[in-house]
Amino acid sequence: MPTLQAETESPRPAQQASPTLIFEVLHRHQHTMALKGAIDLELFTHIARGATTTAALAERCHADERGIRILCDFLTVIGFLRKTSGSYSLTTDSTVFLDKQSPAYMGSVTGFLSHPVILDQFRDIAGLVRNGGPDNGVGSMSPDNDIWVEFANSMVPMVSMVAQLVAPIVAKPGSRIKVLDVAAGHGILGISVARANPAAEIIAADWKNVLKVATANAAKAGVQDRFHTVPGDVFESELGTGFDLVLVSNFLHCFDATANIRLLKKVQSALKPGGQLAVIEFVPNDDKVSPPVAASFAMNMLGNTERGDVYTLTEFNAMFREAGFGESRIQQLQPTPLSLILVSR
Amino acid sequence: MPTLQAETESPRPAQQASPTLIFEVLHRHQHTMALKGAIDLELFTHIARGATTTAALAERCHADERGIRILCDFLTVIGFLRKTSGSYSLTTDSTVFLDKQSPAYMGSVTGFLSHPVILDQFRDIAGLVRNGGPDNGVGSMSPDNDIWVEFANSMVPMVSMVAQLVAPIVAKPGSRIKVLDVAAGHGILGISVARANPAAEIIAADWKNVLKVATANAAKAGVQDRFHTVPGDVFESELGTGFDLVLVSNFLHCFDATANIRLLKKVQSALKPGGQLAVIEFVPNDDKVSPPVAASFAMNMLGNTERGDVYTLTEFNAMFREAGFGESRIQQLQPTPLSLILVSR
Repeated sequence: MPTLQAETESPRPAQQASPTLIFEVLHRHQHTMALKGAIDLELFTHIARGATTTAALAERCHADERGIRILCDFLTVIGFLRKTSGSYSLTTDSTVFLDKQSPAYMGSVTGFLSHPVILDQFRDIAGLVRNGGPDNGVGSMSPDNDIWVEFANSMVPMVSMVAQLVAPIVAKPGSRIKVLDVAAGHGILGISVARANPAAEIIAADWKNVLKVATANAAKAGVQDRFHTVPGDVFESELGTGFDLVLVSNFLHCFDATANIRLLKKVQSALKPGGQLAVIEFVPNDDKVSPPVAASFAMNMLGNTERGDVYTLTEFNAMFREAGFGESRIQQLQPTPLSLILVSR
Repeated sequence: MPTLQAETESPRPAQQASPTLIFEVLHRHQHTMALKGAIDLELFTHIARGATTTAALAERCHADERGIRILCDFLTVIGFLRKTSGSYSLTTDSTVFLDKQSPAYMGSVTGFLSHPVILDQFRDIAGLVRNGGPDNGVGSMSPDNDIWVEFANSMVPMVSMVAQLVAPIVAKPGSRIKVLDVAAGHGILGISVARANPAAEIIAADWKNVLKVATANAAKAGVQDRFHTVPGDVFESELGTGFDLVLVSNFLHCFDATANIRLLKKVQSALKPGGQLAVIEFVPNDDKVSPPVAASFAMNMLGNTERGDVYTLTEFNAMFREAGFGESRIQQLQPTPLSLILVSR
């Protein structure tokens, strides 16, 4: 008897309706939780160390073999493992980012991205849409909210990659520069600039509890002498003046255009003439439905903030103009889904 | 200035690592919840009725316009809407299955598939893998568990499509047949056979509370005179003998091979010589990682059952042989992700 070897379910003419996508999407919560579960089990690390069969993995993970097989097969389906003759191996992404022995390991990001508090923000999206946002959202930007400490601790590996791409572009090694890192979080962006330019002085602004994480990271990187902090609400605090560079990374998406223009005006007057603003953001195309990761980041803003959104370059340029800035330049920060926008005072 | 019009994030050589898939998968829980939220808001129905802009949709859904725009853009990214010049339209799938006015509307499936109890089964997949399954899983097959009433009520539209594909193949109109529907649930499969063959007599076996739903559905379909029930655990109850056809739909995946062989032996002796067993199942290829929907259904079994799994045709054939059955034939039930396996006594 021939074995069923279909490549996909229901190959079909373009106009034939199929319930498969609906069924599949209603199970995608399992994709998130399976990846988190595999990271929790250090499954990728064990595979990298040579446990490539379900029996070997069950032993290393102190787990049930049926559970291991179901999880490994599932991770193969969603693209994090390969399976050959019953034995599993890592993909390029999981080798680089999910094996704990890798310098670029980023398993810790689940500490924020799949934190129960964050997951629960999205349990009732109809309610979010009716209310226009969360009632008491994690991203309500309440002072010293602990979730941002979790963020600062967990997201370092993902942000480090971005910082390594941005620092060489903005750090101007050889020049004495004064840098403001707005809503610095983990501080990694400013710290990377400080490492790329030994004459750079960094001022990191954020909530006091979050700045503790940034200060510890600065010490770890050996740049603590050139790393200073401004605690408090960046919309209200005295940020100083005479900056050569202001970094605003993954922050403008938390607010509406009115709030952003207010902040950008403040940033504009903090910059010295000829100074540069560097904005790191998810920037969708004008249609706001492509590219997929940047466009769908808006859903995070619906769940986690009161008025946040993703903005197109056209929308950012309007805010920049309103705040008194000149022309902007954008570049994609491949291989991440983020973009860098540079704007001159 | 050129506008950023990238088609996808990070087009890249095959071997360059990217954090994008990790980032994207850790947000896929939002895909599930966004589709559920849109169904809750009757968003697809409002679009079908002509509300195609964010302003019109916000009014019809009594919702916030920013929330509507973010949700509609998100649904466009994940494939349930199209967006043209700021106006949204339905895809083929959402026209047929997500508009409440459509006869094939299946929005109710979220009542089971994204029931909080079901979602919570997958909150700690590492724990599931360590324990080998849920401690007190919804699928522990405990007697008269209410979640199966929810299942029986919610899943009717999805199952109806399957039943309409299966009934013409197995119902033998013109012959007087006696049909056993094992773990009948909503009863839809047996009912469809009864409608396709006016001389068919159906005996539906399931928990007592679930059979109430099936009996109500039989009355609705006008086949109540030919619809009888056997309440209780199908592994233990007296199912009768002399059946021409036994239906076992989406049930064998809940158990291990040993339990399935026990049930199949019982089914085999309930059939008359020459009688037919019809099994409806998610049947992956021998690699167990393709096709994607059938293969990944195993994760449901890890979360919801103690020993369940998806089985390949090779594995099913071994169980059939062990239970005394003859040859099997398989066919895909396109456009669904399910397969029908027919086996003769």
